[in-house]
Amino acid sequence: MKLALLGVFAISSLALSAAVFSSAASGVPPENASPIYGVTIPDGYRDWRFIAPAQEAPPLDELPAVLGNDIAVEAYKKGTLPFPDGSILVKLAYKREQSTEFAPATVPGASTTVQVMVKDSKKYPDSHGWGFGRFVNDKPVDAAQHETCLSCHVGNVKDHDFVFTRYAP
Amino acid sequence: MKLALLGVFAISSLALSAAVFSSAASGVPPENASPIYGVTIPDGYRDWRFIAPAQEAPPLDELPAVLGNDIAVEAYKKGTLPFPDGSILVKLAYKREQSTEFAPATVPGASTTVQVMVKDSKKYPDSHGWGFGRFVNDKPVDAAQHETCLSCHVGNVKDHDFVFTRYAP
Repeated sequence: MKLALLGVFAISSLALSAAVFSSAASGVPPENASPIYGVTIPDGYRDWRFIAPAQEAPPLDELPAVLGNDIAVEAYKKGTLPFPDGSILVKLAYKREQSTEFAPATVPGASTTVQVMVKDSKKYPDSHGWGFGRFVNDKPVDAAQHETCLSCHVGNVKDHDFVFTRYAP
Repeated sequence: MKLALLGVFAISSLALSAAVFSSAASGVPPENASPIYGVTIPDGYRDWRFIAPAQEAPPLDELPAVLGNDIAVEAYKKGTLPFPDGSILVKLAYKREQSTEFAPATVPGASTTVQVMVKDSKKYPDSHGWGFGRFVNDKPVDAAQHETCLSCHVGNVKDHDFVFTRYAP
């Protein structure tokens, strides 16, 4: 009986892995996928449309900007909430750097992180439909850091489908 | 003799107006075109690709971001300098606003200005090929403000084809 149950659990786990991670054939998350969520950096995201800039105070001391794929941008423009499945948001963050050419300006220095939110309500039922990925130099950071994503988004922006960024006019 | 010269000057001025301003038929700049340069806000610019964010210290106290049309973005990616004719850059600037949802973050408030640079070496031979437009609430600001564009760009970024913004990675 115990063995039979274990068997069912193992099969479910495999099925879940196949759904969450794109390397479905092996059931093993690719090296470049985030822990917990299996999110990868989407191809071509740097050419996606612009949603909004921001600024993060020290110690982060960053200039971020959020881009979105077409599904996400159209949802923003129409005010569609929750975001539809297929929406992807990418936050590009840069170290703040004093401009050497124009004294009042701070400009982007080195890239610090790329952060991704993917909406897929079937794949991510336990995180309000969102999968998270945080990448440094194109590599995902560890599980501990990924565990902080959801609680911060749930704690602060549950009324905006767990998304901080608003569309800048 | 004087009259004849005046006549030539008047014709040249008209020809210049027709070249600079898009309403070529009348030779009169449209109401929504910038003084000096006759630059208008380009259609669809809000969907253009993202070049870089920035931050401007007080008293401006703004969060700007620069978008570019395809010609400009491809030039940035290839490192093409000077920018080819047809390049258009648009800077969207927003008042810096403290986020009410995440203490370390500053987010975009109201739009302050939209600023446009258009590369057309035939149309703008006296300003290194660039035409400038600065708009508040979609209306161009006055000539005095437009007179400051060129000198600041020439004084600070002549080695980057008079463009401040670099492509953020």
